[in-house]
Amino acid sequence: MRPARLAQLALLLEVSGTPKPGNVDRCRDHADLRFDHMLAGAVGAVDGLEAAEAGAAVGESFERAVAGMAAAQRAGNTQFGALLLLVPLVRAAAEAAVTPARATAVVEATTVADAAAFCRAFDRVDVHVGDPPDALSAFDVRRPARAAEAAEREEVTLATLMARSAAVDGIAREWTTGFERTFAAADALLEASGPVTDRAATVYLDLLAERPDPFVAKQHGHERADRVRDRARAAREGALDPAELADALVAEGVNPGTTADIVAGGLFVALERGMGV
Amino acid sequence: MRPARLAQLALLLEVSGTPKPGNVDRCRDHADLRFDHMLAGAVGAVDGLEAAEAGAAVGESFERAVAGMAAAQRAGNTQFGALLLLVPLVRAAAEAAVTPARATAVVEATTVADAAAFCRAFDRVDVHVGDPPDALSAFDVRRPARAAEAAEREEVTLATLMARSAAVDGIAREWTTGFERTFAAADALLEASGPVTDRAATVYLDLLAERPDPFVAKQHGHERADRVRDRARAAREGALDPAELADALVAEGVNPGTTADIVAGGLFVALERGMGV
Repeated sequence: MRPARLAQLALLLEVSGTPKPGNVDRCRDHADLRFDHMLAGAVGAVDGLEAAEAGAAVGESFERAVAGMAAAQRAGNTQFGALLLLVPLVRAAAEAAVTPARATAVVEATTVADAAAFCRAFDRVDVHVGDPPDALSAFDVRRPARAAEAAEREEVTLATLMARSAAVDGIAREWTTGFERTFAAADALLEASGPVTDRAATVYLDLLAERPDPFVAKQHGHERADRVRDRARAAREGALDPAELADALVAEGVNPGTTADIVAGGLFVALERGMGV
Repeated sequence: MRPARLAQLALLLEVSGTPKPGNVDRCRDHADLRFDHMLAGAVGAVDGLEAAEAGAAVGESFERAVAGMAAAQRAGNTQFGALLLLVPLVRAAAEAAVTPARATAVVEATTVADAAAFCRAFDRVDVHVGDPPDALSAFDVRRPARAAEAAEREEVTLATLMARSAAVDGIAREWTTGFERTFAAADALLEASGPVTDRAATVYLDLLAERPDPFVAKQHGHERADRVRDRARAAREGALDPAELADALVAEGVNPGTTADIVAGGLFVALERGMGV
């Protein structure tokens, strides 16, 4: 299958692994974000993914993917972060086998227009965003049009915007580290055996145990994110049932979204490298 | 969304309803057919659905959808029947609002070439087929190339092939009755409330209680199919827990596939008519 379709399949497989503590999964919904919303988001996003595959600019492709995702269902943001990860990877995969170097080349080729389109994507759907870090005070995406104008005025590329966000945003960090955790997740998925959705659940728990989820930190603070990581470690080591942790985090309204996004990116790379369903 | 994408979403929503006694659903896999296979099949089939939307011939579109479905995963036949239902509906919806009359016009316009392509589709994937009825003895699709040649030699259209199969095949029956149960399912889905996947599960149980599933009859005989209908009635009337019936039928290896196909068709029509996720 072509890269855009594999990226869509990655989104579908990601949400279908279980248990994936804190996320919508095959067995769990959040009150305001359900499994059917995630399916529809993955279907709606594919136009933007196909644009990236066809060589359209990264920012434009991302904005289109987000617009399609948002129009396809009523829950708002279903896969914003995952698409921000997938669009440059799909763009890289359209040319040759996807590698950290090729993905980084796509990032480095982004322009001021890409930055503006990225900012405008926040107008398509409500995304949870906190106060911008100091280095980004001019680019408060809670006011998307103004942020897009600032990017154009200050001639800031999307790569630069991401680099300035990397300390607080887990997807931006991927953009600036050669998609380090994404490719590591892909390796883990390829090395594992069994149904792909089971592998995705295992890799998700490993990633959650490895590092505090930046999206949880944004929504609930760093202490809470550290505590979630510790509970994931306990689940990974057998001291806690992962299914119980999943039920608990959903009940607490804690959604480690960045970790899920990285699993989706890892699934895409693994599918590109021949992982079969 | 355009019709091909809505048809893809219908396939995804269909498999995600639960409980859907006897079928792969959000909570249940069969030993040789899992949820991840169904997701990949729905992604792989979309090229053929897009061909139908773009006005390609019904037989060619169907063959392409089946080939894509089969290439995307390793479980073989995931959605053959559902695609046979969806392709003419997508073709009809591409022109104007989908109605029984427009779908029937698509059926009646099918040609000998469509019949040959339909026969060849059986070469793409193993489909459970019994001995052909007498009226179809020359078209034994267990030998796809030979059946395709017979269709060409005897100048039989796909509409004629379907009419001759209608007594034994539930999808062929839809083709010859203005997609009667499909449109009834769409009405029921539109009248219901709540998450679309929950509505799909309810409508599935209603259909299963209404009439013996022809695929169960093919695989396990008419008595067994009648008995499954009776158990579905008991579940519908509260005398049996639908989730228990679902576990039991999966354990027995009974898969009422035609009923699931009709739900997928109904979901497509309902989405076309504005049912939102």
